[in-house]
This record gives sequence, structure tokens and C-alpha cells, in this order.
Amino acid sequence: MPQITSRQNPRVKAAAALKNRKARDASGLAIVYGPRETLRALAAGADLVEAFLCRDLFCGAEATDAAEALRASGVLLHETTPEVFERLAYGDRLDGVVSVVRPVPRTLEALSLGDRPLIAVVEGVEKPGNLGAILRSADGAGLDAVVLADPVIDLFGPNVIRASVGAVFKPNIAVGGAAEVIAWVRGLGLPLYATRPDATQDYTAADFSSGGVIVLGAEATGLSDAWRGEGVNAIALPMNGIADSLNLSATAAVLFYEALRQRG
Amino acid sequence: MPQITSRQNPRVKAAAALKNRKARDASGLAIVYGPRETLRALAAGADLVEAFLCRDLFCGAEATDAAEALRASGVLLHETTPEVFERLAYGDRLDGVVSVVRPVPRTLEALSLGDRPLIAVVEGVEKPGNLGAILRSADGAGLDAVVLADPVIDLFGPNVIRASVGAVFKPNIAVGGAAEVIAWVRGLGLPLYATRPDATQDYTAADFSSGGVIVLGAEATGLSDAWRGEGVNAIALPMNGIADSLNLSATAAVLFYEALRQRG
Repeated sequence: MPQITSRQNPRVKAAAALKNRKARDASGLAIVYGPRETLRALAAGADLVEAFLCRDLFCGAEATDAAEALRASGVLLHETTPEVFERLAYGDRLDGVVSVVRPVPRTLEALSLGDRPLIAVVEGVEKPGNLGAILRSADGAGLDAVVLADPVIDLFGPNVIRASVGAVFKPNIAVGGAAEVIAWVRGLGLPLYATRPDATQDYTAADFSSGGVIVLGAEATGLSDAWRGEGVNAIALPMNGIADSLNLSATAAVLFYEALRQRG
Repeated sequence: MPQITSRQNPRVKAAAALKNRKARDASGLAIVYGPRETLRALAAGADLVEAFLCRDLFCGAEATDAAEALRASGVLLHETTPEVFERLAYGDRLDGVVSVVRPVPRTLEALSLGDRPLIAVVEGVEKPGNLGAILRSADGAGLDAVVLADPVIDLFGPNVIRASVGAVFKPNIAVGGAAEVIAWVRGLGLPLYATRPDATQDYTAADFSSGGVIVLGAEATGLSDAWRGEGVNAIALPMNGIADSLNLSATAAVLFYEALRQRG
């Protein structure tokens, strides 16, 4: 494979630009930093457009595994020098593997739900690390789908990808407008649980045995009033200390795994 | 109250320097950014040495509440101009309240445990945000104690304080050397659960009804081998997706709340 030795190489420049949302929005592409994240993106079925490898920077089995998996998947590969790779890397993460993906925007209609489905709806999360951790926990708990209502941050930003360890590329994640999401959720006829710190019902009283929808709001402002009224059960975690809530992604993990536990 | 108008004021300079660990280690002091964190530090019983207020920057009830609580607690208060406050603030968090605390280093012997105690042991966590979120979840779940074995990051760094929303100042948090912590934990005679992604026992099989110890390791490397052998039960969360573990603080939250749920 010919090695890219110039930091001015147009493919390198185009990939490096994907750090910025403007370039991502314009191209419909996103960048995945790191061997583990690349492996997870492949596992999630992401459409990988190309990848850049710098074998001089490989360290440990994951980079080699990622290179092999990329090759086996027929992804267009470029070898680079360390100097070129530095231009592509995220901060000081010089771990030798960066890939470019074409994320498929998922619609609600495209979601495929199992029997007694478990679904999370996330409204207006502000911190990429929280959104990524929520997606990672939803993946671990085996949720059928995660729906983002009017997301304010880029689903395919570097910090979401990293914190989700690639789970953001799974086909069971959809994005929709708030009104559309509410109508869709209501149409499912599943028990609907809105998490609110001031709710009086304990989360352990929620019944996920026949499936259900867990709705989570933004860190600072919580859920909007659209998630109130007939058929919406407000639930909260018991708070036995000085704080009045957990970190949002911690709340999500507790709820997702409680639902999984109940379903056995 | 006289207003501090000079950015060269020695108290301001000394407080601003607490951003850096060197100054914290040399003085035995730490800095708490924000009205909510200050209120939580007060609620946790932290020893507040002084606080800086900038009423021109107050926004919302929390700043006023914090100022009132500080005054009622007899904490030495300084009013500052916005220009001076900017020097004290953390990044762009110009929310008008910064306080200085003298954290009390807690020993294992100083911990007071209830009946059937629930205890978390945290070994070598690397990310301040994770440690803070773990302390926040431990506070929420009402754990009796959190013990840090050989911590590699500063327990009273700004990002731990912020992510813990002040829970880091609670008197039920102790620090000890790894060997000391293991001996202490073993001496308690409680069921001992070490979280390892490769464990075959599901966490829901853990029995917390008579209390127990939950041991968590570092993000990248996991628990050391010191937490293996006779009497140590390795547990894991079921992972039904592409990732092989959750974010560390998500794992902690799931375990803490499962323990709380079992104890009813």
C-alpha cells in the first residue's frame, strides 16, 4: 500500500476537517478516532468510507485487530507517516487508527422493534459525554431502540462517538422532531415513564415486563412539559443524600438495567 | 462589606492559585466553583474557610441561596467586582460564587458504619468526572462509605468537586493505601463483590441484604489482582450489545442502586 507522506494530501485534509461540525454537516461524513471505536463502528454496521493507519504508532492488539477487520471489510485504507497521522488524530490520541464513516440518519419508521420492546427517548441532552454514555448503556442493556427528540448536539461529534464506544452507529438509534417523537411513542401503546427528579413514584415501581418507554431530559433543565399528562408516569430514583439527582447518564444506566433485570 | 476591586488582592491571588494541584497540596485548601457546589459543600459539612461573591453576576435563586447560607454559617465573605471575580472563576462559569474549603483527609478508622453497611471501594480511577459521578451516585444511593485505594487523581480537584456536586466533602469518604484498604475490607466480614467485565456471575446474583462491599477498578485497566482469591466474588453486568462494559460511573450507579433496591 502506498504511504501518504504529505500533511497537505487532500484526503488527509478532508478527513482532518471532520473534527468540525461544519465540515461534517457539509459532507455527510464523520470521523472515528481510535482502534476500539473503529472496531465498534464496524460491529455496529456503520458504513466506513476509508481509514488511515499509521503502523509506527500501533500499540497493543486492538490496533492490529482494527487494521485486520478494516482490510477484511474491504474498507479503503491509507497508510500514513506519524507526521501525517498527527494531523488526523484527536488531541494526543496517537493510536494509529482513524476512520471516516457515512452515518445513516435513521428515521422512526426505519426502527425495527422486538416483542415487548424497551425504548429510551432522549430529549435535548447537552453534553456529548452524557449522550455517548447513554448510548453505551442502552447497547449494554440491549434496548430495542434509542430515539433522540430534537437533539441539540451533533450525534456524530467526536466526543459522542468516543463516549458511546461506537454504539452511536447502531441501526436502532433514530432522530426525530419533538412532536413527531411524542406522537410515535404514544402510538406504541407501551407504558411510558418520564424521569423527573421531583416525581413521587419510585423507579422500582415501574413495570417493564411488557416493554416500556423511558424518557430522559436535559441535564440542566430536565424534561419539557410535552412529557406530562394522561398516560405518562413520572418516576425518580430515591435520593438518600445531599444531591437531588444523579448524573444523567448514571440515571439512564440504572433505569435501563432495572428494565433488563425485570425482563429476566 | 468592603468590596475587593483589585485583581492583585492577595486573598484573590491565593484563592485563584488553588486551580492548580501544587497550590492545593501546599496549602491544604481546595476551591469550590459555583453556588450549587458551595451549597452542597455546606450541606456535606465541609470546613469553609472563606467565599467570594459577585452579586452583579448572580443569576437565579441558587446564588442568593448560597450567599445566604454562607452568611448564616459565619463563613468569611468577600464581595468582588466582576473583573476580580473573573480571575477566580473556572473557565466561563461566571456565576458569582466561589468558596475555599479545607478538606479533612479521612482515614478508614474515622468511618462510621451503620448496620448492614454498603461500602464502595474505588481503586485507581483516572477520570475526575467519573470519580465525581461515582461519589454523587454513592450519595444518592445512601452508601455508608466510599473508600479510595491509592487514588491517582486529586480527590479535591475542581472536576471531581463539580461532578460530585459537592458530595466529595461528605465525612463518609476515606482514602487509604491499597494494602491497608484490602486488610480493612477483609476485616469487615461483609460479602465482597469485585466488578470485572469478564466475570461470569451476574450482578443481580449478588446479595446485598446483609450489607456488602462493591469494588470498582480503573477505566482502562480494571481491578488489580489484589482483588482476587478466597472470599472475593467477581460480578459483571450483562452486556447484550457490541460493547464489553459500561462507562465506569454507569456501572457504579447500577450496582449501588441494585444494592439499595435489594435492601428495600
